[in-house]
Amino acid sequence: MTDTDNAIATDETDRLIASNKVEGTTVYNDEGEKLGSIYNFMVDKVSGEVEYAVLQFGGLFGLGADYYPLPWDLLTYDTEQGGYVVDLDKETLEAAPRYSDEEPRYDRAYGEQVYGHYGLTYPGI
Amino acid sequence: MTDTDNAIATDETDRLIASNKVEGTTVYNDEGEKLGSIYNFMVDKVSGEVEYAVLQFGGLFGLGADYYPLPWDLLTYDTEQGGYVVDLDKETLEAAPRYSDEEPRYDRAYGEQVYGHYGLTYPGI
Repeated sequence: MTDTDNAIATDETDRLIASNKVEGTTVYNDEGEKLGSIYNFMVDKVSGEVEYAVLQFGGLFGLGADYYPLPWDLLTYDTEQGGYVVDLDKETLEAAPRYSDEEPRYDRAYGEQVYGHYGLTYPGI
Repeated sequence: MTDTDNAIATDETDRLIASNKVEGTTVYNDEGEKLGSIYNFMVDKVSGEVEYAVLQFGGLFGLGADYYPLPWDLLTYDTEQGGYVVDLDKETLEAAPRYSDEEPRYDRAYGEQVYGHYGLTYPGI
């Protein structure tokens, strides 16, 4: 919100990254094609663990956009491209769980559906 | 960024909360006094664990503000007040690790200093 170039440059260490630096960051696939950007991410209130990074794709100013909750583990930050890279082919993403207007309930069943789609085990309770 | 009232109302479940909903949320102490608001939070890139929620206090539009990194565990969301409550007395907060202009390095030594100040064990590596 009050980010300056300086804040953006320092809101990150080798191991930690600031939440407001993640939001809006571009997401690429392995071929360097732009998939979208990180809209926000969903955190477990008690454990403080990030369960999903939500990829925003398409739309204008958030209108008509699709949102793809991705397991946090799928994202790798690429310093060269200045964005996240996810190793996903088009088929996997086209069939992936997504929403547009109404947010899902983000319960265990949804978690298993999303993580299962990417071949991962849902870590939540 | 593209929050509407509707998005704010649904960006939360019983167990998960959206990153952009946490940012800007008011923080109170046990007596209901306003301490400040959440500026952002720091996430472990690999594990996806939130290590700090950063409390912003004072200043105007981010100028001259102080930033207090707080262990995530200290924060409890209070639906009645619509904000986070931390059980901290003034003395603890006045002596707490903080920064204004330049961000700290957020390494292990800093983590132990911050968590230690609040009587907690640093969970990071």
